Amino acid sequence: MALEPERTTRGWAARDASGILSPYTYSLRNTGPEDVYVKVLCCGVCHTDIHQIKNDLGMSNYPMVPGHEVVGEVVEVGSAVTKFKVGDTVGVGAIVGCCRNCRPCKADIEQYCNKKIWSYNDVYTDGKPTQGGFAGAMVVDQKFVVKIPEGMAPEQAAPLLCAGVTVYSPLSHFGLTQRGLRGGILGIGGVGHMGVKIAKAMGHHVTVISSSEKKREEAMEHLGADEYVVSSDSTRMQEAADSLDYIIDTVPVFHPLEPYLSLLKLDGKLILMGVINTPLQFLTPVVMLGRKSITGSFIGSMKETEEMLEFCKEKGLSSMIEVVKMDYVNKALERLEKNDVRYRFVVDVAGSKLDQ
Amino acid sequence: MALEPERTTRGWAARDASGILSPYTYSLRNTGPEDVYVKVLCCGVCHTDIHQIKNDLGMSNYPMVPGHEVVGEVVEVGSAVTKFKVGDTVGVGAIVGCCRNCRPCKADIEQYCNKKIWSYNDVYTDGKPTQGGFAGAMVVDQKFVVKIPEGMAPEQAAPLLCAGVTVYSPLSHFGLTQRGLRGGILGIGGVGHMGVKIAKAMGHHVTVISSSEKKREEAMEHLGADEYVVSSDSTRMQEAADSLDYIIDTVPVFHPLEPYLSLLKLDGKLILMGVINTPLQFLTPVVMLGRKSITGSFIGSMKETEEMLEFCKEKGLSSMIEVVKMDYVNKALERLEKNDVRYRFVVDVAGSKLDQ
Repeated sequence: MALEPERTTRGWAARDASGILSPYTYSLRNTGPEDVYVKVLCCGVCHTDIHQIKNDLGMSNYPMVPGHEVVGEVVEVGSAVTKFKVGDTVGVGAIVGCCRNCRPCKADIEQYCNKKIWSYNDVYTDGKPTQGGFAGAMVVDQKFVVKIPEGMAPEQAAPLLCAGVTVYSPLSHFGLTQRGLRGGILGIGGVGHMGVKIAKAMGHHVTVISSSEKKREEAMEHLGADEYVVSSDSTRMQEAADSLDYIIDTVPVFHPLEPYLSLLKLDGKLILMGVINTPLQFLTPVVMLGRKSITGSFIGSMKETEEMLEFCKEKGLSSMIEVVKMDYVNKALERLEKNDVRYRFVVDVAGSKLDQ
Repeated sequence: MALEPERTTRGWAARDASGILSPYTYSLRNTGPEDVYVKVLCCGVCHTDIHQIKNDLGMSNYPMVPGHEVVGEVVEVGSAVTKFKVGDTVGVGAIVGCCRNCRPCKADIEQYCNKKIWSYNDVYTDGKPTQGGFAGAMVVDQKFVVKIPEGMAPEQAAPLLCAGVTVYSPLSHFGLTQRGLRGGILGIGGVGHMGVKIAKAMGHHVTVISSSEKKREEAMEHLGADEYVVSSDSTRMQEAADSLDYIIDTVPVFHPLEPYLSLLKLDGKLILMGVINTPLQFLTPVVMLGRKSITGSFIGSMKETEEMLEFCKEKGLSSMIEVVKMDYVNKALERLEKNDVRYRFVVDVAGSKLDQ
């Protein structure tokens, strides 16, 4: 029996904490029984990618191929793969492995498994580093692959796989999906813009809360928000007090919570999405006297990802993206760091030359 | 038709922010159609009473008769009173009025009504100051009166009317009443001791978390806690990580939240009960990565009070109290301020001379 030749692919990797990506060739495992071999079509660029390539969390290993909003085409499936067939358009998100035995795994919320394996900058069960979607191909266990619904464009689907499910999951988990709710979105970046879109698609009345007037037109005209409140406008903030069922707080830096807690109704929820290394603060009476909750959640499960994709397809939800080629990715990362994108870069990987 | 003579009663009132109580005679309204005229039997002493009599919140009016854990006997009922008859043993808690029209009122959670009327240090609908239970009698609308279950001693029931329902309400509201849950109680004062008792009666495994070894024996032997963890013992805290479904946090002063958030399981809830004027702090990843909630609640509704009393009766739950006469009340307040009571003072009002 002949040994299978080792498969290689070409991706764009960071070599050090400068975070500059450049072409890098590496080997992929052969397609095991549960694996799906995916040719990458496109991949969204998320703020977390910047943290990882620049070693902001102090846990980066190089070379590192980032990218965790991956849409691709199935090229080959392992013998035990039942969910997919060659030619399917599929998605891969932030996680590619979990222990399958812990309480979260058994409850189908494997994103909370303590042994989850990240799509990149992690070590797979075979001892090899995981590498992400800014590359020609990935080999992924079928459990961590989702079908992209028929008729949804790959580049539209990409941002849903992280930003989309990050918003959808808490709304679903905390029972905030019924029509007529009043939601607030704090911060309009990749996740925030998806928050407005998904909340609107659920039939919510959506208020965007921002630190300046700058994004009013975008929020109201382009994203379809119902209201826009500038947080420094105390009259408007007072008028909006006690009016929201939830706020999705995407601000990634320190900010006071009191003004936003005040906007919540009785039993309202402040849902934090920003990983912030400075402690946030609040006064206990503000929480207690309205039985409010400060909570947060972390991406979403594979099951929720599938649900969310179906939901977005059914509602005809589209993300607002700027599609770029791989040779623009370093510029895209630079612009993303300055929030200079409306609202998500997606790299057209299949349409890019990956060698230069 | 002869005018009814105005009714008076004798209570013990604070005259200024020194917080010293002394005898005070004042008028009560006559029993209107919905009112219950209650002869006070006994009244618990809560930490909030100290804040009120000492004007710690800057909202005190004098003379002020405190007391909001009141058990009494019905002496007279108005023509429209259907819930009570003369001779019934009844309870009155922290609230004696609400608007009846707002969302919380209509949802039977009138404790969150913005127009609620406090049992004392407030103004009633007739324009007169409300006065509490350290007095011979109260006249209270039947909506804010509960029946004390047959066979429950008045002095045992008193602490349930505030401390008891304060703990029972969030456990009930947040779906934390089923057997087998693992709860933490942070701080063992009037509310904390009731927390251990009620959680145990629900069939929970209860861990008391304390800053020192001092209360270990009390917590384990007298209150029946299952475990006792000293928060500065990092080995034990690490062992207890990720183990609790909820923590009832009764600490009334600034304290870090990280160590306690770490003890919570996925989806665990930190339920704050202490009104603290210094902001509390937390790091967002600790909340997000375990989908934990920082929340709190405020006393409980009349409906929950009734449920809780039935629950305590059924479970044979008793509070640990020190019964004193009214002439000891100033000393009791002084000792309570130093946490020198196991765990609640109850004033035997009916057995006290109120004139001296």
